[in-house]
Amino acid sequence: MWASAPGFSRCYTVVMNVNGKPYRTIWPLGENTPGAVAVIDQRRLPHEFLTLELHSVADYCHAISDMAVRGAGLIGATAAWGMCAAAYSAAAEKSSFDEAIALAAAELKATRPTAVNLAWAVGEQEEAIAKALSGPAPGGTGLEADESPVSRACVAARQRAIEIADSDAAMCRSIGVHGLEIIRKIRAEKDAAGRGNEPVNILTHCNAGWLAFVDHGSATAPVYAAHDEGLAVHVWVDETRPRAQGAALTAWELGSHGVSHDVVADNAGGHMMQHGLVDMVITGADRVSAGGDAANKIGTYLKALAASDNNIPFYVALPSSTFDWNIDDGVAEIPIEERHGDEVRFARGLSKRSGSPDEVLICPENSSARNWGFDVTPRRLITALITERGICPASREGISGLFPERH
Amino acid sequence: MWASAPGFSRCYTVVMNVNGKPYRTIWPLGENTPGAVAVIDQRRLPHEFLTLELHSVADYCHAISDMAVRGAGLIGATAAWGMCAAAYSAAAEKSSFDEAIALAAAELKATRPTAVNLAWAVGEQEEAIAKALSGPAPGGTGLEADESPVSRACVAARQRAIEIADSDAAMCRSIGVHGLEIIRKIRAEKDAAGRGNEPVNILTHCNAGWLAFVDHGSATAPVYAAHDEGLAVHVWVDETRPRAQGAALTAWELGSHGVSHDVVADNAGGHMMQHGLVDMVITGADRVSAGGDAANKIGTYLKALAASDNNIPFYVALPSSTFDWNIDDGVAEIPIEERHGDEVRFARGLSKRSGSPDEVLICPENSSARNWGFDVTPRRLITALITERGICPASREGISGLFPERH
Repeated sequence: MWASAPGFSRCYTVVMNVNGKPYRTIWPLGENTPGAVAVIDQRRLPHEFLTLELHSVADYCHAISDMAVRGAGLIGATAAWGMCAAAYSAAAEKSSFDEAIALAAAELKATRPTAVNLAWAVGEQEEAIAKALSGPAPGGTGLEADESPVSRACVAARQRAIEIADSDAAMCRSIGVHGLEIIRKIRAEKDAAGRGNEPVNILTHCNAGWLAFVDHGSATAPVYAAHDEGLAVHVWVDETRPRAQGAALTAWELGSHGVSHDVVADNAGGHMMQHGLVDMVITGADRVSAGGDAANKIGTYLKALAASDNNIPFYVALPSSTFDWNIDDGVAEIPIEERHGDEVRFARGLSKRSGSPDEVLICPENSSARNWGFDVTPRRLITALITERGICPASREGISGLFPERH
Repeated sequence: MWASAPGFSRCYTVVMNVNGKPYRTIWPLGENTPGAVAVIDQRRLPHEFLTLELHSVADYCHAISDMAVRGAGLIGATAAWGMCAAAYSAAAEKSSFDEAIALAAAELKATRPTAVNLAWAVGEQEEAIAKALSGPAPGGTGLEADESPVSRACVAARQRAIEIADSDAAMCRSIGVHGLEIIRKIRAEKDAAGRGNEPVNILTHCNAGWLAFVDHGSATAPVYAAHDEGLAVHVWVDETRPRAQGAALTAWELGSHGVSHDVVADNAGGHMMQHGLVDMVITGADRVSAGGDAANKIGTYLKALAASDNNIPFYVALPSSTFDWNIDDGVAEIPIEERHGDEVRFARGLSKRSGSPDEVLICPENSSARNWGFDVTPRRLITALITERGICPASREGISGLFPERH
């Protein structure tokens, strides 16, 4: 099925069946279009499952800024592939290669200000390209690199994009292995307290699921791992206004995988924690400072306050690419993106009347809105960080213990 | 304009202009239909301003349970008028008057479990009716009461309904007078700190405005008082999912009155408080325990936690009819209404496509949702209570100081 998607230079969409068939969120189209990928168009979920091809740097930028792809890990992988597209495009156009790469890097970095993976992935590609321009072709790519430095740079960028995506998936799998230990412990505690008939109730905010990464997810990886080994888990899915990524994406992911869940309003978590309905909170992060403060979807800080007030453990799950090693005080130093107020003024979903996607205006026509995308949860409210290397306290010392090479 | 409104036995709706013309939220239709009132149909706001007539007890019950009227004070006034309708209806039907009154009282009380004003107003009417049945007709009603005890009871119920509504409006006006002092103090502090060019930024949750009462409002009364005397105020209006009473009602009220405001997601308050964008929080309450714990719209507790964490004053404004003198520990003892999950699964507003009211499904069709209506903010998080008698600490001692007759 061909469909138009405004803002993309070329677009091929196809309705696909996800039942039982594993997908990644981003995958290369093949060696004939070496800078192109397909992604799941997450703006259409949960009501339509469509994929979108990205070819030009403008495609990649638009996919990130318009949130067809979103989530820390996936933004990083998409940006890495965007740099690969920039290299192949600049090589074909015979224009100034260096200038084209620098321009693409700037454009990609400007699409979303908060996610550190974006700048990290672009930086990795700039380094890979610079190294290839001045050195020998990388080995083991399966592609024949000719002797031109520009061709070497293209091959290097493609190889690095594949590595970044694979590494993201592998890190998330490790997060699941480590986080599973926490769920097992809570399961054992509930069993010992005579609450063996209750599931482990886990609250999460926004979508830090496999849709936010290349595969597995961060906050969801322990949940999937527990579910897959037969532990009874139940997930409270925060709606996550204004864009409702929890209701639209996390609920869809969990439902597709058969994990028990309920959607709740973002306002509900405090009441639920006061009344023993939440055993633990796991969220993802868009950027975590070297001191352990975590920027995540707006509203995360409020849930961390409620967890702290009710002695409920609050975990932040992240691959180490999400650390910003240059920042200590996340509350003061992490820049927070402000988005268009219409995301707040409108709610998006499937119309009850027409059965089609629509948006409804929830406030008076002439009322304005403000819309900050993220907030920062101070380290003092975070029980621990779950990373691909293990679990550590949310502190400079705790993080250094797991990542001594960054100290 | 006549329009149908499903669920009401009789319904006369009319499009009215609110610009510059003061309204109450409920008013008697007149002596020819002595048990009937008109109310603003708040389910239609902010996109349509319609009024609805309530005649039968079933009309009153449906208006409360379906939230055509909502808010502590207005629910109380509506229930009081519903008891008046019950009296006139039972008198006309010549059936057992006592049984009919008891049945109506039970039906009205069952419409919403959390709001204490509901049970209070019904109780007031039961008492007024019982007294009239056994004693002389009340004086000064302007109505001629015949000698029949049942007729005396009808007149007494009508007089008490008018008193309850007038008293609600008067209490809210007093709350405004007292709360204004707090805003003046913050204004002076900002001026002294060289922030004279900034408005006093006030965050509120849900709708505790004049729409939630008979007139003036509780949380909004100080805001309107400040605005009317020329103090620069700006209101951050929490959307208040799932029913979005903030975005739909508070924003409409404030805009109609010319008060500067922005709608924000329920998730935003913590970030805003971390960054100095909120000078004070004022919310209403649906029930406040004698110890000072405040039940209010779900999510209020989360804002109180954030205010406490950022040293921002958090006030709860309430008329004394909202106190539940029989409860001390609000978190443990106040029953919390659980409503239908579809309020979470859908968002309501004006369709972008059709321009008509519609609802959109925000999650997968087969995902379920849970929907608690209220939470309880513990007294330790409340800076003070603003009542019609003045401002007091949220504690048993503080409340007793203002209301010694309840001690």
